[in-house]
Amino acid sequence: MLTVFGSVAIDTIRTPSRIVRNALGGAATYAAISASFFHRPGLIAVVGNDFPEKYQHVLDRFTDSRGLVHANGRTFLYDGSYDQTLSSRKTNKTELNVLKDFKPTVPEKYRKSEFVYLANNDPAQNTRIIKEFDRVKFSMCDTIDFWISTKRSDVIKMMGVVDSIVINDEEARLLTKTHNLIKAAKKIMQWGTRLVIIKKGEHGSLLFYDDVVFPSPAFSLENIVDPTGAGDSFAGGMIGYLASKNSTRLQAIKEAVVYGNVMGSFAVEKYGIAGLVGLSRLDIRNRFNYYKRIVHF
Amino acid sequence: MLTVFGSVAIDTIRTPSRIVRNALGGAATYAAISASFFHRPGLIAVVGNDFPEKYQHVLDRFTDSRGLVHANGRTFLYDGSYDQTLSSRKTNKTELNVLKDFKPTVPEKYRKSEFVYLANNDPAQNTRIIKEFDRVKFSMCDTIDFWISTKRSDVIKMMGVVDSIVINDEEARLLTKTHNLIKAAKKIMQWGTRLVIIKKGEHGSLLFYDDVVFPSPAFSLENIVDPTGAGDSFAGGMIGYLASKNSTRLQAIKEAVVYGNVMGSFAVEKYGIAGLVGLSRLDIRNRFNYYKRIVHF
Repeated sequence: MLTVFGSVAIDTIRTPSRIVRNALGGAATYAAISASFFHRPGLIAVVGNDFPEKYQHVLDRFTDSRGLVHANGRTFLYDGSYDQTLSSRKTNKTELNVLKDFKPTVPEKYRKSEFVYLANNDPAQNTRIIKEFDRVKFSMCDTIDFWISTKRSDVIKMMGVVDSIVINDEEARLLTKTHNLIKAAKKIMQWGTRLVIIKKGEHGSLLFYDDVVFPSPAFSLENIVDPTGAGDSFAGGMIGYLASKNSTRLQAIKEAVVYGNVMGSFAVEKYGIAGLVGLSRLDIRNRFNYYKRIVHF
Repeated sequence: MLTVFGSVAIDTIRTPSRIVRNALGGAATYAAISASFFHRPGLIAVVGNDFPEKYQHVLDRFTDSRGLVHANGRTFLYDGSYDQTLSSRKTNKTELNVLKDFKPTVPEKYRKSEFVYLANNDPAQNTRIIKEFDRVKFSMCDTIDFWISTKRSDVIKMMGVVDSIVINDEEARLLTKTHNLIKAAKKIMQWGTRLVIIKKGEHGSLLFYDDVVFPSPAFSLENIVDPTGAGDSFAGGMIGYLASKNSTRLQAIKEAVVYGNVMGSFAVEKYGIAGLVGLSRLDIRNRFNYYKRIVHF
């Protein structure tokens, strides 16, 4: 089984060409939906009593949502604007709401998950919750600059209890205080995690595993409309694929990284989760095969 | 035959860890030496009467330097400083010297070159000189922000007479006034060139050829000491490989791009041309094969 722990949000996304208000968003939403095309995930998250029924239906469709807690109050709310190039985002408003007092626990039925994805939650919370699982075979976490700036030592402690981290290049540099990404990855691995995936947005990703470096270029896209959730879709696709193979061998991990790239590329082609929810497994396999064909020489 | 036309310079390179004064540099020097491991190039360039004999020996060793003109005056001089991350360079001094009044012509013995590389020279000069060759099979040019800013229409005209361009991502954006690199490449191809290679430094490169996009990640390096000449070594390796194969088929071009990556990666591991001149063909083939192994999945 695969479990995803993270945020479910109500997003307002502003790009130069369009504003999408009150969309279903959040790191766990993107990661879980992306993962679901490979392996149906359990979801640990919280929403408020304002959470629209239609969004509940989306989560029910793609996930085992029995771990979704309905709390009194309003759902976590995020509002952000992209610049003209869609490469940088400014936060206009964040309301934690029900997320603020959420004390997540792992439901009994999820405890036997072999695969666990911990999204960009409070690192101390991630470190605590991973211990509630009984037989984790492979865990992966994410983190963001906010936690690195405010709780760096907790982020480093989290590296000691997870198998892998997916992290942006700039965040890896910030966390390790190192410019060179190979040196940065080695430093992170010294803190305990066996596997580091550095995401470089339009430049693809670098996987570090023992002495192996696996660089993979991004799927080149001419029309990107909304980068929201690309990183979470990458992570979800990656761990979903590994869960479906029930494997953590290098070959499976390389393929998983490419599936991560593929899912990220679908995510940014439409607004919000629209790039993911309309997909079929065949769409995904076709893009994977196309990618393989263009990258190989 | 392969001919390289560009600058030979005396460089002073300042990095945070070392200053190298009066080194042999210049776009044509790097490109020609890099190319020489695949196919010995002819060299069209000018130096002054201060040009050190030991540097003449280097050029004689790696190139057919009968096209090197010795003019009265001092050799082109460049002085630049890198920042702490080695990712941006500031020019301290440029003295054109003999380059200023150089009127290059193609020596009789080079006119039958099938492969021609025009480095980041004045685009009007590149456009003129390519016409002096009798039977060009494949020509490639480079350009830099200076020409794009001061002679944009000449750069665009140059696209109409060459087969391919290698260009940095930022320069491609500046030239086409387009952020998305696929759109930028398409725009450049509309001006006439069949093939566009966008170099992205540590992120590798993108090759555009008809409807094909071939993304290739850079060779990941932990210790970069001097990025000078990386782009020229890339271009030289690429066209040198094509000349050695006497081919412009897609498969050869893809391999040539990877050889370009490989030569760029060697160039930055030592100061100045030291990363190139000590190489053997076996070193290069080994790194190509290693690269192939890590990138494939």
